[in-house]
Amino acid sequence: MRKIIDPAPEIWAELAKRPTKNLEDLEPGILETFKLVQEQGDNALLQLADKYDGVKLSSLVASTEEIAAAESGVSQELKEAILQAYSNIQLFHTQQAEPVKQVETMFGVTCWRKSVPIEKVGLYIPGGTAPLFSTLLMLGVPARIAGCQELVLCTPPSKDGNIHPAILYTASLLGVSRIIKAGGAQAIAAMAFGTESVPPVYKIFGPGNQYVTVAKQLVSKAGVAIDLPAGPSEVLVMADETANPAFVAADLLSQAEHGPDSQVVLLASSEAVLAQVEQELEAQLKVLPRKEFAAKALNNSLGIVLGGVEEMLRFSNLYAPEHLILSVSDFEQLLDGITNAGSVFLGHYSPESAGDYASGTNHTLPTNGYARAYSGVSLDSFVKKITFQYITREGLQNIGQTIETMAEAEGLEAHKNAVSIRLNELNRV
Amino acid sequence: MRKIIDPAPEIWAELAKRPTKNLEDLEPGILETFKLVQEQGDNALLQLADKYDGVKLSSLVASTEEIAAAESGVSQELKEAILQAYSNIQLFHTQQAEPVKQVETMFGVTCWRKSVPIEKVGLYIPGGTAPLFSTLLMLGVPARIAGCQELVLCTPPSKDGNIHPAILYTASLLGVSRIIKAGGAQAIAAMAFGTESVPPVYKIFGPGNQYVTVAKQLVSKAGVAIDLPAGPSEVLVMADETANPAFVAADLLSQAEHGPDSQVVLLASSEAVLAQVEQELEAQLKVLPRKEFAAKALNNSLGIVLGGVEEMLRFSNLYAPEHLILSVSDFEQLLDGITNAGSVFLGHYSPESAGDYASGTNHTLPTNGYARAYSGVSLDSFVKKITFQYITREGLQNIGQTIETMAEAEGLEAHKNAVSIRLNELNRV
Repeated sequence: MRKIIDPAPEIWAELAKRPTKNLEDLEPGILETFKLVQEQGDNALLQLADKYDGVKLSSLVASTEEIAAAESGVSQELKEAILQAYSNIQLFHTQQAEPVKQVETMFGVTCWRKSVPIEKVGLYIPGGTAPLFSTLLMLGVPARIAGCQELVLCTPPSKDGNIHPAILYTASLLGVSRIIKAGGAQAIAAMAFGTESVPPVYKIFGPGNQYVTVAKQLVSKAGVAIDLPAGPSEVLVMADETANPAFVAADLLSQAEHGPDSQVVLLASSEAVLAQVEQELEAQLKVLPRKEFAAKALNNSLGIVLGGVEEMLRFSNLYAPEHLILSVSDFEQLLDGITNAGSVFLGHYSPESAGDYASGTNHTLPTNGYARAYSGVSLDSFVKKITFQYITREGLQNIGQTIETMAEAEGLEAHKNAVSIRLNELNRV
Repeated sequence: MRKIIDPAPEIWAELAKRPTKNLEDLEPGILETFKLVQEQGDNALLQLADKYDGVKLSSLVASTEEIAAAESGVSQELKEAILQAYSNIQLFHTQQAEPVKQVETMFGVTCWRKSVPIEKVGLYIPGGTAPLFSTLLMLGVPARIAGCQELVLCTPPSKDGNIHPAILYTASLLGVSRIIKAGGAQAIAAMAFGTESVPPVYKIFGPGNQYVTVAKQLVSKAGVAIDLPAGPSEVLVMADETANPAFVAADLLSQAEHGPDSQVVLLASSEAVLAQVEQELEAQLKVLPRKEFAAKALNNSLGIVLGGVEEMLRFSNLYAPEHLILSVSDFEQLLDGITNAGSVFLGHYSPESAGDYASGTNHTLPTNGYARAYSGVSLDSFVKKITFQYITREGLQNIGQTIETMAEAEGLEAHKNAVSIRLNELNRV
């Protein structure tokens, strides 16, 4: 952990910077993959599963038998935990539904907007070191609440051609329409352009490695929407004298274990607090299974001593963390001052893992400072809000001149005429 | 107008396609512009104003004197129209504010989300043939309601170094922090990266030519958010026997006059309706000032006869128009079936121009089929929705095991430990 005591405000912006990674070199290779998928469809996905995942698949689509069998591959305890998380996520996201409100902006001019589900969405769940069924919940539950008709899931198969039972079980709970054994840029291409087995979708969600990240960027240029620009996961913890150093260390480590490029920032109210947390970090790190990842991430992490909570808040807003943990006594006083953050955890008993899994909030959040302008995934991410307007004859007589005057001033006579021609008819009657 | 009578469903997808334009060739030149702006700041903007706008500016920033003088350059009638539109847009967008709702997902586990303004936003208003003060209203009013602190406006100067008084007047109403005389890709670069005169912003809004479009795509890859991917404006009108052919023709022309690449689609319930509208188009076109634009757009437009409203609706959903006008008798019956559209205009007295200027709905809408996954600009576009969670000791005891079980199943021991270490302490007490 890089330690900085009371840094001068002039260097804060530098401290708040993330390491930049230029991924443009990956683009040509990924565009080749796109071409292959567009030209050869399923066959391309089968070839690339062989090449990258080391498996000769007999079918790209998980069969109903495989899905049914997964049920017995998940312990009763895990099923109950998944159902509890499902219920909490559902409860929280259901509250995000916007009721239709009609607004009569002038007499006879009525406007409203209505949330309409995105019909077809694609969910990408990476393979690798951890089966992220929690991410599938975080994406699938709001998709279901929204009413998306088609949910396509792509996830890379293991070397024996299977998908982890917890992923299949969760997908089955969510009523995923189609589960495809495909990973990487080829999976993103398949969902964007479609193949024989993969229906093309309108929006693609989910985390992934740098190939997936770049592939999502590229399909978004081609008109397929994506959830969020991606970057390594982050936490910023503010800790004062009331914080329990062991809890703080555990929270920092839960971020650090994601991978060596995880961003971990501690703002401590004093050198003593910083030292206590460091001591705990060392002790807890030793017994972690993923200690290599965590140790690397900690090497790049920041421990900054800042005198007051006001200063901490200012630094945090500048940094715009994905996760913000307020392990301080007076967190309520800080709430109104938080301008940039993805999700915020209040007090000493709200660890980030609660939001990662089960409290109900979404864990797909803006990283890399994107919290300055982006929200995390929510019910909103799975709907379009379509506006409607109904103008009566009288309404058009009320608003007509305003429109005519503005259209004329913009030099758009046909816009004006669409009103004038109607007003003329009304005056004639 | 290309006429198609009862097309077979197999060719619908082809009919619904927009012309594709490959803008990638523009990227290298635009990246050069970015580099110039990043290296030379204001000086680059001044050079490029000379080169592209043909003006040697003494200052990039509109002075308070210029802004004050604009007041007298706008007629009383236009001021009143702008104020009326402002009021309607404000009324409609204020209703989009989301109240904070606390949800206790389990006893002791409380979650909520809060809309927080994006602190700094940039608004781009193109120059060219029409001074689009209406677009400035559509972006500036929700930005103000959201509470964005810094509103930066970039718009290209005329050859005499001025900005149109209606733009300055509207900007002044909106309390725009800084008005910059800059257009094109260089304006987008200035707002993304900052110069001596232009503060860098977190999100950039507004329409523009293909250079602006590509520049927005490129800065969004670099982490600055943008409003929407852009494309030529569009309208789809459904007309049955109850429609007034003159009104329908006027609506089609108001779209066509935007430019030669405007997309205009008419779905008519019979060949007779189509023929009547065509006749009206011809008559009205003759007297339009922008008839060259409109005629070109009409050449590329589609007039499709489809027997029933159900079929029309299905085609419209496939096309996903930016603007959808229902000039049919039973439009109320269609509302629930609309799945893809930007903004919808109901009945015979709700022309698109109403929404373009003054009804209250936003006119920055998804084009090019993006309405399948994107919403138009709204109050939401100017805020981030930050989630919060507060878990009590008892709450953590309720939810703890769920988190531990899930974290362990995902192989993330440190995530589990952040809960266990707290539960252990609670059990010890």
